[in-house]
Amino acid sequence: MSDLRVIKVKQSVLANNDARAEALRKELKENKVFLINLMSSPGAGKTTLLVNLINRLKDKIRIGVIEADMDAMVDAETIESKTGVRTIQLHTSGECHLDAKMTSEAVREIGEDNLDLIILENIGNLVCPAEFDTGASMNLVILSVPEGDDKPLKYPLMFRKGHAFVFTKIDAKSVFDFDVELAEKRIRDLNPAAKFFPLSAKTGEGMEALEEFILASVAERK
Amino acid sequence: MSDLRVIKVKQSVLANNDARAEALRKELKENKVFLINLMSSPGAGKTTLLVNLINRLKDKIRIGVIEADMDAMVDAETIESKTGVRTIQLHTSGECHLDAKMTSEAVREIGEDNLDLIILENIGNLVCPAEFDTGASMNLVILSVPEGDDKPLKYPLMFRKGHAFVFTKIDAKSVFDFDVELAEKRIRDLNPAAKFFPLSAKTGEGMEALEEFILASVAERK
Repeated sequence: MSDLRVIKVKQSVLANNDARAEALRKELKENKVFLINLMSSPGAGKTTLLVNLINRLKDKIRIGVIEADMDAMVDAETIESKTGVRTIQLHTSGECHLDAKMTSEAVREIGEDNLDLIILENIGNLVCPAEFDTGASMNLVILSVPEGDDKPLKYPLMFRKGHAFVFTKIDAKSVFDFDVELAEKRIRDLNPAAKFFPLSAKTGEGMEALEEFILASVAERK
Repeated sequence: MSDLRVIKVKQSVLANNDARAEALRKELKENKVFLINLMSSPGAGKTTLLVNLINRLKDKIRIGVIEADMDAMVDAETIESKTGVRTIQLHTSGECHLDAKMTSEAVREIGEDNLDLIILENIGNLVCPAEFDTGASMNLVILSVPEGDDKPLKYPLMFRKGHAFVFTKIDAKSVFDFDVELAEKRIRDLNPAAKFFPLSAKTGEGMEALEEFILASVAERK
């Protein structure tokens, strides 16, 4: 195949996807449901963060979780058993990202009634998920300390598409060279409005700021 | 777009890609060049591993490095400045993987004359690179300790496609829950012939076994 052909197909897919994403975002707004699209590398700590965050939020707002994976059920089982909130598992049949169509189907499945917040845990991948608008109200991107502060240079689209950034595993900062200020500067160069939350879901350090930010974002939607 | 259409395009791309990959593999074999395709998540430590490994190997065999990234030059600059071996940088214009066509072009650019080993550092991604045969003689997959031992369950294709697996950052094992034996079992369930190299490129622990394995693999090609 020529490179051109791939690009053409991608453009056509993306154009349809954008319209679907806007429709979903509009529907969610009408139903007063806030949808967070959580993205990161594999192993950055999405599930551990979610368990901690949901347990802080679940008595204040009504939460549902959509777990996406290529395969396996481990994350959905972990979330459900450790938080008790409504959780569904999506399998993407090998696709490296979620698009607005898959997200709409998952939202339909989990239901918008009686929920204030739906958290969509995207496939662990810093490349493809950034290319597809899911229809979410907010893109929350995790960068973990062991991955290194150079990731915004190497995966710029992801760091452009995020609205807020969580630096996880800061309890391991002594073991790794990770400069929080440098990471923030590199992201801000791509994305001046970015918000930052350095934290450890393991020790709880920094979790309160993220909790307040999510609560304020959900309240704004009402 | 319908899901069906995407799948069709992928199949057509993959069919062409397989033929190109076989042609490249044959050409490399005739020229007695061993090509390693190095794959992992973002931030698993590919570049740090390469610097350490190349400095151990470079007086014994002739090495060239192809660095692939969506953007940035940082990895190629690091490799070249810290090892002195011939290095070129590939930019994939947003593509999440390398295919056999891109790899052939890069091999043509770096040249097969006077090289025993070419190391291709693929895009940091556990999903897409597993789908495309690059024409490499060996797929070397890195899983870093901070990512967690559950990754083979969640990204099974990558762990099926690897020939050898390096567990990096084992110096950080006390900080993270990572069970080496469980990770090996989970990979072996998918891939019974898998070989394993737990190591720390930072402390040097375990590097010798990997060095010997690479030297033996290159020698076999001669």
